[in-house]
Amino acid sequence: MAHQAVVSYCRFIQSQVMNRARAQHEQQIKKARESKMCGTDKRPDPCPIITKSLSSDSIINLDHGDPTMYKEYWERMGDKCSITITGWQSLSYFSNTSNICWFLEPEFEKEVRRIHSVVGNAVAEDYHIVVGNGSSQLFQAALYALSPANALQPMNVVSAAPYYSSYPALTEFLKSGLYKWAGDACNFDKEEPYIELVTSPNNPDGFIREAVANCRKLGKLVHDLAYYWPQYTAITAPADHDVMLFTVSKCTGHAGTRIGWALVKDREVARKMTKFIELNTIGVSKDSQLRAAKILQVLSNCCECARPGETENFFEHFRGQMTERWDRLRGVVKGSDLFSLPEYPVEFCNFFGDFFEAQPAFAWLKCREEIEDCESFLKSHKIITRSGRHFGEIPSMLELACLIKITLSISYYKGCQP
Amino acid sequence: MAHQAVVSYCRFIQSQVMNRARAQHEQQIKKARESKMCGTDKRPDPCPIITKSLSSDSIINLDHGDPTMYKEYWERMGDKCSITITGWQSLSYFSNTSNICWFLEPEFEKEVRRIHSVVGNAVAEDYHIVVGNGSSQLFQAALYALSPANALQPMNVVSAAPYYSSYPALTEFLKSGLYKWAGDACNFDKEEPYIELVTSPNNPDGFIREAVANCRKLGKLVHDLAYYWPQYTAITAPADHDVMLFTVSKCTGHAGTRIGWALVKDREVARKMTKFIELNTIGVSKDSQLRAAKILQVLSNCCECARPGETENFFEHFRGQMTERWDRLRGVVKGSDLFSLPEYPVEFCNFFGDFFEAQPAFAWLKCREEIEDCESFLKSHKIITRSGRHFGEIPSMLELACLIKITLSISYYKGCQP
Repeated sequence: MAHQAVVSYCRFIQSQVMNRARAQHEQQIKKARESKMCGTDKRPDPCPIITKSLSSDSIINLDHGDPTMYKEYWERMGDKCSITITGWQSLSYFSNTSNICWFLEPEFEKEVRRIHSVVGNAVAEDYHIVVGNGSSQLFQAALYALSPANALQPMNVVSAAPYYSSYPALTEFLKSGLYKWAGDACNFDKEEPYIELVTSPNNPDGFIREAVANCRKLGKLVHDLAYYWPQYTAITAPADHDVMLFTVSKCTGHAGTRIGWALVKDREVARKMTKFIELNTIGVSKDSQLRAAKILQVLSNCCECARPGETENFFEHFRGQMTERWDRLRGVVKGSDLFSLPEYPVEFCNFFGDFFEAQPAFAWLKCREEIEDCESFLKSHKIITRSGRHFGEIPSMLELACLIKITLSISYYKGCQP
Repeated sequence: MAHQAVVSYCRFIQSQVMNRARAQHEQQIKKARESKMCGTDKRPDPCPIITKSLSSDSIINLDHGDPTMYKEYWERMGDKCSITITGWQSLSYFSNTSNICWFLEPEFEKEVRRIHSVVGNAVAEDYHIVVGNGSSQLFQAALYALSPANALQPMNVVSAAPYYSSYPALTEFLKSGLYKWAGDACNFDKEEPYIELVTSPNNPDGFIREAVANCRKLGKLVHDLAYYWPQYTAITAPADHDVMLFTVSKCTGHAGTRIGWALVKDREVARKMTKFIELNTIGVSKDSQLRAAKILQVLSNCCECARPGETENFFEHFRGQMTERWDRLRGVVKGSDLFSLPEYPVEFCNFFGDFFEAQPAFAWLKCREEIEDCESFLKSHKIITRSGRHFGEIPSMLELACLIKITLSISYYKGCQP
């Protein structure tokens, strides 16, 4: 039965990934003992997730992403990335009052500029940096900054479908009079000002994107580049858009630290984004900024010191992991006539100096046959996914987040912390 | 000349506080060497602020508060309050998925409940705890949670004047269709639903408050209890309101860590506040929650272990400091016919087991004579204050934030980090 095949498929993927993860983990412990180049000889604790067995009545949650796959790498880095914060540090609200973004820690600013220079994914010189409590807050800060305070009508906010499923809710939840969600950018043809959100690589389908709305002279652009890092896609050129959003969650995996940043070309836009964050949360945790600075510092150091081909290079290591996962996923999909996956162009990556195709942190899986509402069907089999309808598409498209999202799906439904 | 007297007065206060701070700091270093009870024998670094001299053209900023006065205490606590965060900790978005507030760190929750039990300033048992990026975010979360999603009109938001000067901006900056600023609660007489913000002790005047709006059955209350700690006011009873907001900034001085919490009686309100924070910032920094938990743990320990009268008890130490500052301020004001200060009732404090009168973190100074706009006048003399008009009052009332706010005023205008 086709339905049963879907369930078997998901469980097969899961068990394969878990077995592989266990083997990789053991191999990494062995490697870490042998090499001290960028790692440590301290043995990491065994990962609690991958030692758990998966029973047939387990709930598999492929809806929410959670970057716990990155944990084993940071374990291997050992004390290099640890920071100690004393009780008397960082009491003040202020970080640098000579900066437009007065709550931006200078050390964090320095490491943000450095990582972009090392990776080559964005121009950071001559840009203002605004730090945020994750990139969601920066997204809202950008809407606030780019919407005139005294306009008669709220600003239109659009994005090309399939778009990041949280954009409509983030735009609408306070019923702001400054801006409103106006849907698919491809269908937007009003002669009115608008903000277009360009997510590249795109969540959920992983493609590199450019602005699409037709009336460019009335439009302002916000580029969400959260996934524009070399483990996911080829770095073809440094991005140099007006407003670019990044987050450590997607770059290094430190989602719990809630740190994002915006590179902003225009001084007044940076000032208004800062004002939003001042009103919303009176700045951003210094503890987290200092920690993110340390992580980025180690990351840049490792990129600069590791020889090509060595897995101690963070991006090389995780590009390898993503390649393995995508190879397995494509292998399984190929053996079934139920599904298809997007095909990505092979592109030259300036960071790695070679060609490869995109391997997003999520899979945008298309059901080919009789299953009209995959989300409901899979839910009845205890597999939770996010239907394509949340992304502005028909329900047979679903975001199968089976790649980096698998580990958490078990742990948080079973009450075990990752 | 009266004008000159104002300037002299401010500079006198400043120099007195600085001299005193220097002397106290030296004494504390000496004490820390002698006693190890709750402190450390490690000598803290000299405070850079109090070794700076004040020139006649320095700008004195008494507008923004910044709790850097607390730094010397935490220095004396030494490594007791330090935390080390490894690179592989806290990667996940999730803290506790069995809690309504799924991003609340269990350790932080535990220490919040404990400190309220130790101090006796609020009932925490049977309340839901929602953590926020400071109490400003929780204030917005409360407005979101208490305003019906589908009402025809935005909810009225009121507070009795003089009210916290940021309330109108925080309520209005996104032009939300869910709620709107409706001004002074004392003047609110519409037969419409409303949210009343009750700040107690009140910012800016320091008085204990209760709800005042007339049509109670249509009203919902949010109690901002940021200053309801025993260094500022007598703890007369554990507060048990529906929604109570607190922040570490005002309790322990750790403003840069951006951690606040709400005690919420109703499950659905807690769920909606959590939803706001999920949409706004996808949770709250785990690093900061862990740090705040550590600080609160040491605070509770010190309260429980220090003998009465010992300055190692945090609250006793800072009650003493606030008393000294208020004594000096009252002495200066008494010798002038230009100003008057509020008189606070003497009340029994359950925490200290004695009587004392409130000594807020700011002074609500009233000009008696010909100076109609104190803010403008003092600004021309390089003294920055916040006029009473920001608090819903006439301009001759000003918030003279000369107590704990003095140290930062020098450092951040001179580019020196506190």
